[in-house]
Amino acid sequence: MTTDSTGLKTAVAEVAARVENAMRKDLAGRLAGSDPLLREVVEYSLFSGGKRIRPFLCVLSARCCGRDDADLYTLAAALEYLHTATLMHDDVVDHAPLRRGRETAVQRYSLEDAILAGDWLHARSLYLVGKFTGAEGLDVFCSATEGMVNGEFVQKRLCGDYRASEEDYFAVITQKTGNLIASSCALGALYAGADRARVQALQRYGEGVGIAFQIVDDLLDYTGRQALTGKETGNDFQEGKLTLPLIRALAAASPAEQEEMKKLIEGDRTRPEARAAIQAFIESLGGFQSAAQSAQHCVTEALGKLALFSADPAASPHVGLLQALTGYILVRKK
Amino acid sequence: MTTDSTGLKTAVAEVAARVENAMRKDLAGRLAGSDPLLREVVEYSLFSGGKRIRPFLCVLSARCCGRDDADLYTLAAALEYLHTATLMHDDVVDHAPLRRGRETAVQRYSLEDAILAGDWLHARSLYLVGKFTGAEGLDVFCSATEGMVNGEFVQKRLCGDYRASEEDYFAVITQKTGNLIASSCALGALYAGADRARVQALQRYGEGVGIAFQIVDDLLDYTGRQALTGKETGNDFQEGKLTLPLIRALAAASPAEQEEMKKLIEGDRTRPEARAAIQAFIESLGGFQSAAQSAQHCVTEALGKLALFSADPAASPHVGLLQALTGYILVRKK
Repeated sequence: MTTDSTGLKTAVAEVAARVENAMRKDLAGRLAGSDPLLREVVEYSLFSGGKRIRPFLCVLSARCCGRDDADLYTLAAALEYLHTATLMHDDVVDHAPLRRGRETAVQRYSLEDAILAGDWLHARSLYLVGKFTGAEGLDVFCSATEGMVNGEFVQKRLCGDYRASEEDYFAVITQKTGNLIASSCALGALYAGADRARVQALQRYGEGVGIAFQIVDDLLDYTGRQALTGKETGNDFQEGKLTLPLIRALAAASPAEQEEMKKLIEGDRTRPEARAAIQAFIESLGGFQSAAQSAQHCVTEALGKLALFSADPAASPHVGLLQALTGYILVRKK
Repeated sequence: MTTDSTGLKTAVAEVAARVENAMRKDLAGRLAGSDPLLREVVEYSLFSGGKRIRPFLCVLSARCCGRDDADLYTLAAALEYLHTATLMHDDVVDHAPLRRGRETAVQRYSLEDAILAGDWLHARSLYLVGKFTGAEGLDVFCSATEGMVNGEFVQKRLCGDYRASEEDYFAVITQKTGNLIASSCALGALYAGADRARVQALQRYGEGVGIAFQIVDDLLDYTGRQALTGKETGNDFQEGKLTLPLIRALAAASPAEQEEMKKLIEGDRTRPEARAAIQAFIESLGGFQSAAQSAQHCVTEALGKLALFSADPAASPHVGLLQALTGYILVRKK
């Protein structure tokens, strides 16, 4: 069964609405009597027009494995809690003024508010994951969180280093993005009581989707339009992060071109001319095209993992949505 | 059975050594292959000469309830992980240069390193608590974490407000300090499979001890010597935090004195003369003495909770240590 993009959009919106209901209910209970500003910062950060892709993957994975009930949406909410907590802390670290086209929490409130409200969401997310998926789920989830932190450290160590390799890049994005998306799928499957093969298949699907998602994100940092993405572009190069388009361009460059690119990477990266020059190098050396092909390749691998469910007619509509989602990731403009 | 201060010191050092072993083992396994800087920041922050009071309470509570084995020390380590994570984030928020007489992580490394390594410890602590004490322990632990965040928000809201009440003060310190110490006791008891009455008695004991500990901490912020405490003194007044000595002094003051104190609280609190003047008011109005009496009262209440164990001879040496600990809290100078 194939699902068209309208069907996917409807399903994403349906799950998002149910997850947002679950979030509001959970927060109303948990933050009753709490400081009003804490509640405001948490709600401001959570309800910011995100598509709730991680919760969507959690819910769809559980459905693929035959379970769908009210608590599933609270478990799915936990994934958005953690994702939001990490964004809040990332924005503090990056001094980012904008996210999804509006002020970040650190910009609108304060450093203190963003750090602490992020910690609140972190604690709450782990509680919910432990409650609904036990020690096994907690292990998956905490490993993802720990990996995200490690990915940030590795990324920082490689910052501005023109020798950063393709292996380094994939290690970083697997930890920074792939693992939490993979966990979203694994937790849904664990919640549904799926066997190890199904849990692993969905986890690997999620990892492939997550990596493809991040490759596209890194492409959009060069080629996206701020009006669509809601983020400033060109950040990665400016911060010295070598992402796949640039790594591929460096690999394809002649020694003379490499030398020029190295100078741009190690020089003043805030100059608009440096940004334009590096972008021209990547374009002419096929870096954007090559990175896009890698995203396509990850998606193909991810789709292969879903074959396990082909013998199960009950899973078919849900698998169709997971398949359709991969198409969206490749063509997204924001 | 009573325990003298030498017996207490020996027991605290013995538990600390075993907990530190457990931490090193856990970190070696968990951070193998991780970024070397992440490991360095985590270890720098954890191994800073702390007395491991929270782990001590966890271990002693489990022993009171009849269980003592290797995993207990890993569970106890989780309490130090969370405590350290909150200190790291607090130091980021407060721009604190020193803690326990040496550079804070944010000062020595960076904002990013301190926030992220704190997140790593947070995730790891919750995983261990979930693993060893299940959903019930996770609930206790996450509630404490969420409460700590809320306590920070409430404290900030009351900052510089001379009308902050005694009730406000106790609500804040119960959340900021009391709950995690209470959780340390409760988790030890839960780990030992204790009945509800024992879990609650130890939890209440811990809450009383935690509140007394914080009252003494707030006293030392006025009356302590930096060479002993390793922290700058006078921070609370400077930041506009109304702690118990000042709240009690305000309550005992004449209208004219209140008016003068209000001016000091709402004026430029960074002036050394303002600090000296408020300290003289607190002294002459009996604020320090009155706060010390409250700490004593909390300790007496806490000790009363241990009566439940008096019929159990096997618990006696452990109860004796918990009793002795309360004496240390009241007389500590750092």
